[in-house]
Amino acid sequence: MVDISRRNIVAGSAVLAAAASCMPAYGFAPPINKPAAGFYRYKVGEIEVTVVNDGVSRMPLTDDFVSNVPKDRVNAALDALFMEKDFYAGPYNPIVVNNGKQLALIDTGTGELGFKGSNGLNGRLMLGLAAAGIDPATIDVVIASHYHGDHINGILKADNTLAFPNAEILVPEPEHKFWMDDGEMSRTTNPRVEAGFRNARRVLTPEVLKRLRTYQTGKEVIAGVTALSSPGHTPGHHSHIISSGNKTVFAQADVTHAPFLFARNPGWHIALDVDPVMAEATRRKIYDMLAADRMTVQGFHYPFPAVAHIEKTSNGYREVMVQWSPVL
Amino acid sequence: MVDISRRNIVAGSAVLAAAASCMPAYGFAPPINKPAAGFYRYKVGEIEVTVVNDGVSRMPLTDDFVSNVPKDRVNAALDALFMEKDFYAGPYNPIVVNNGKQLALIDTGTGELGFKGSNGLNGRLMLGLAAAGIDPATIDVVIASHYHGDHINGILKADNTLAFPNAEILVPEPEHKFWMDDGEMSRTTNPRVEAGFRNARRVLTPEVLKRLRTYQTGKEVIAGVTALSSPGHTPGHHSHIISSGNKTVFAQADVTHAPFLFARNPGWHIALDVDPVMAEATRRKIYDMLAADRMTVQGFHYPFPAVAHIEKTSNGYREVMVQWSPVL
Repeated sequence: MVDISRRNIVAGSAVLAAAASCMPAYGFAPPINKPAAGFYRYKVGEIEVTVVNDGVSRMPLTDDFVSNVPKDRVNAALDALFMEKDFYAGPYNPIVVNNGKQLALIDTGTGELGFKGSNGLNGRLMLGLAAAGIDPATIDVVIASHYHGDHINGILKADNTLAFPNAEILVPEPEHKFWMDDGEMSRTTNPRVEAGFRNARRVLTPEVLKRLRTYQTGKEVIAGVTALSSPGHTPGHHSHIISSGNKTVFAQADVTHAPFLFARNPGWHIALDVDPVMAEATRRKIYDMLAADRMTVQGFHYPFPAVAHIEKTSNGYREVMVQWSPVL
Repeated sequence: MVDISRRNIVAGSAVLAAAASCMPAYGFAPPINKPAAGFYRYKVGEIEVTVVNDGVSRMPLTDDFVSNVPKDRVNAALDALFMEKDFYAGPYNPIVVNNGKQLALIDTGTGELGFKGSNGLNGRLMLGLAAAGIDPATIDVVIASHYHGDHINGILKADNTLAFPNAEILVPEPEHKFWMDDGEMSRTTNPRVEAGFRNARRVLTPEVLKRLRTYQTGKEVIAGVTALSSPGHTPGHHSHIISSGNKTVFAQADVTHAPFLFARNPGWHIALDVDPVMAEATRRKIYDMLAADRMTVQGFHYPFPAVAHIEKTSNGYREVMVQWSPVL
């Protein structure tokens, strides 16, 4: 029987107190139970690039997800990659570019709504920015590659206010034209594209439109960042060439979705393509260039930190990830 | 002409002050100029693993670095990987294992001396631990896989005091026996091995030896971490099987050095091997097992975050890196 008389409790407390005073300052450390911050930083000449992982999708692999390939073949590819079958895990990697004059965010991830909708599996940009020491209020420019939700939804917070309150929103001219065109919207028969129209119009609130400016292919969007038309995935899809001194990085946006599927199999058409045939032609042209020029590619849907080179293979391309560098 | 009369200076200051008071709270953010913290965290069942990148080497590629292959072939392999020729960039990735009762560090990196000697290119463990929220004083156990400097030098600070002041040092029994054996030391004709003897004896100060305990193959070093003899690279080299519930990770230490060279070419002998023929036999045996069992491998010299699976190829093995997970 346990004696809980006052005398024993007092005596017990005294023993505990004595023991505590003898305890060293250290002791067993409990698990931290918090994932690492997903950010990575490197230089392109004088330009500083911070890759901020927005997380990853976990979409059920529908029969039409790769529209011209049976689901079994996609599952076999996933299995060979030691990845979960019947799901598509596509990473999201926005980047912050500091050219010494402006702080630009290229693509925004899925935003606060994405974070809530995925239980934090994506929509993590704000967490990553905080870890990277970047205040959203200091972003001068948000540059969108195209109008799919994982690239523009992060413009807004969950309450539809601006996530980057002081930023101009720079968007590709033909992309804006397409998704804002009521005729194009009324003519589409593809439910995914239709959803894209509805979402783009949801995100482009009057407040966003007030801050919006269009950019054109071949022109500098900001100093050191040149837009390059890479259409097909969406009609006005653009990539960005980041250049300083003799260094160049090709920020490809969605020329491929995750490279472990779509660069290795450039003929695979992802259901999200508005024009899959044009997307494939663009992909092959750009990947031939990346391989021939041994260019560094920064891929929005590449595995974090999403920096790679491209080698040509017998039936496609293979991403060769750049090793994590401990220094800038 | 510039008028620098006192009156103009005062007037100018007033204008500047007025302008400053109108400035918004934000403004252009200067480059951060600081690399990301190289740590990564994941769970193995109930066990929490934190990978902490210690940086990377940048060793000139000597003619004998791969002792049984001409330097030209090694350079060709580096070039195909888009890596710098004539240098060997080997990453270092110690891990911290929290089994719910003890906090263990497996291998230490090159230490404070390494940090100074490499201008911060390696010896970064302490920076990474700080970023990961791990106080070195809370490390209960340091587990060494073997006695090469990049695995044990971090036991000491630059002033030869203990980097982990409250930790026991657990080392493989045959490894300790070999490097402490004066007869073995006197018989070696390999200058790299000779340097290894000198370094091990430098690191194992009386204070370290006081805290040192040996462990044996097939036994749990701490709960959930079982030692497995994997000799050749050094005579007493051990790997560690981290296991909890139905999850297992094989922490291989140096069964291969960087996999992009030595897993893809398992017959290549790195000059650091004490017994390269035995090391190759161990490597092939373990990699056959990793591939057959589709086991997750954590590789000390893998590119950070250094978690992968192994596929068998026609002439060796290929590391398939696990995608960065944004959540635990």
